Amino acid sequence: MKTYVIAIGGNALESEKAKLDAVLAQISDAIAALVKYGNRVVLVHGNGPQIGKIVIQNKLAKEVIESSSIDECGAITQATIGYTLQKELGNSLRSSGVRKNIVTVLTQVVVDKNEMDRIEPTKPIGPFYSKEEAESIMKNEDVLYAEDAGRGYRRVVKSPKPLKILEMDVIRDLLYAGNIVIAGGGGGIPVIEEDEKLTGVEAVIDKDYTAELIASEIQADVLILLTNIEYVAINYKKENQKSLEIVSVEELNTYVEEGQFHVGSMLPKVDAGMRFVNEAEGREAVIGTLSKLQEIIANKSGTRIVK
Amino acid sequence: MKTYVIAIGGNALESEKAKLDAVLAQISDAIAALVKYGNRVVLVHGNGPQIGKIVIQNKLAKEVIESSSIDECGAITQATIGYTLQKELGNSLRSSGVRKNIVTVLTQVVVDKNEMDRIEPTKPIGPFYSKEEAESIMKNEDVLYAEDAGRGYRRVVKSPKPLKILEMDVIRDLLYAGNIVIAGGGGGIPVIEEDEKLTGVEAVIDKDYTAELIASEIQADVLILLTNIEYVAINYKKENQKSLEIVSVEELNTYVEEGQFHVGSMLPKVDAGMRFVNEAEGREAVIGTLSKLQEIIANKSGTRIVK
Repeated sequence: MKTYVIAIGGNALESEKAKLDAVLAQISDAIAALVKYGNRVVLVHGNGPQIGKIVIQNKLAKEVIESSSIDECGAITQATIGYTLQKELGNSLRSSGVRKNIVTVLTQVVVDKNEMDRIEPTKPIGPFYSKEEAESIMKNEDVLYAEDAGRGYRRVVKSPKPLKILEMDVIRDLLYAGNIVIAGGGGGIPVIEEDEKLTGVEAVIDKDYTAELIASEIQADVLILLTNIEYVAINYKKENQKSLEIVSVEELNTYVEEGQFHVGSMLPKVDAGMRFVNEAEGREAVIGTLSKLQEIIANKSGTRIVK
Repeated sequence: MKTYVIAIGGNALESEKAKLDAVLAQISDAIAALVKYGNRVVLVHGNGPQIGKIVIQNKLAKEVIESSSIDECGAITQATIGYTLQKELGNSLRSSGVRKNIVTVLTQVVVDKNEMDRIEPTKPIGPFYSKEEAESIMKNEDVLYAEDAGRGYRRVVKSPKPLKILEMDVIRDLLYAGNIVIAGGGGGIPVIEEDEKLTGVEAVIDKDYTAELIASEIQADVLILLTNIEYVAINYKKENQKSLEIVSVEELNTYVEEGQFHVGSMLPKVDAGMRFVNEAEGREAVIGTLSKLQEIIANKSGTRIVK
């Protein structure tokens, strides 16, 4: 019996209704197999594209309805994605004969006020724009856009590290009571804590770091970070591109120092994976593609990070 | 040690940020006092005005962003109101020296497919319009508006009865583990169940009925339904208006049959209260005003329904 924390990228979940069903079908068989044999599963999802859409809806309605802050938008994505996951995944599990509660815990995550003051916006949210479109928006609004891994320009917001999951006890209790738990969605709702008072902040925490923090707190055995590539590669998009199958933290650290991984997409995954395996013995972190979750669990796909 | 289910009206929570803090301050002292002495508390909130705003944001952005269905909008209000409640109430509790987790459970509620097919839209959501404005909107869109208790015209949607709270075990476990639980927000996300498959439906469940169902399921002692009036009145807004302080189910039933209470506002509260006290011995239901929660708990305010 093992404890798995599985993080699902927001982009992977960003499809039309029919496509989303197909996406969830891909992972639900694998998750059904895991829980059928008594393994514990926590799901953490991203929210980049989804939070961007909510920001756009807010913007278009701002003359009539007061806009939500970015932390509130984060909370919204926990509900919309959490609801979809628990409904659709629940349907798939029941059709596989697995009767498990899937619970979404609204999750607040404490970040450091000093870090918030210090850092620059780097986390991409929302749809992709051309360079020209992005420049035109930036001229008219107090927002920042930046190039995202060769895929176009997206709005960027601050992305502080998660320090503390406020609902950690609840997540742990629900997991050990036999539930599949959806938590830390979109990296969690970012709050700062001063004199025991919580205040929401305009930021989006990277869900890979939040998944790592949850995985460490519950002493998970396996952290799986799902994205849309099968293996982490070095020399990405170059002639000598090379996929990594099994890689040590030491080796990976060299690549990080070489600047091999893109800030805001692959770097946080690699970083979160290294941190997770480094913190205790016998841990495994895998970065792979959502469509091959079953193969990842069976050691047949994905980049495995070992100590 | 008693178990309380406290339902808070969506209108009562509908204020600007500064005002909302004041509203929550009114109830947080009372809730702090309850939990300090070991009582268990479940909070259920309405979402009428809030879901209406989301529908408007969706409408104004529909050319660019696909609109959410009404069940998804309901999920969204569980997150936005749940987040605000758990953050602000948590701040108040900690300043009163009470350290309790406040947890929001995303709640799906099963409704009856046949009832959905049969019933007419009666549940008001969103902002108030004049008769002329409402008629103009109805001419152009496939939505219904109706007069709401003398306060103006609002959009109405179907409001089926809650049959089953899907996350009931989770709510019970979290409550008995010592958490304050926010559940069934906005009456819960309405889903129908066919061959064990869940599908969301375009409806808003009355949160008073959902609060009653949760209260019955956890065998609560007290169900408190908070609104913006101190007592339930008969002959409302007439010369012979009379406040009810203690009223039996039998007496109340007579008033219901006389049509004393407005569908969509007071009737569901009265109905939920009667059903709750009728189901078992020693139960109490109180309908009162949010600003006097402390007095309601001390038996000094509100309409008490007894068997």
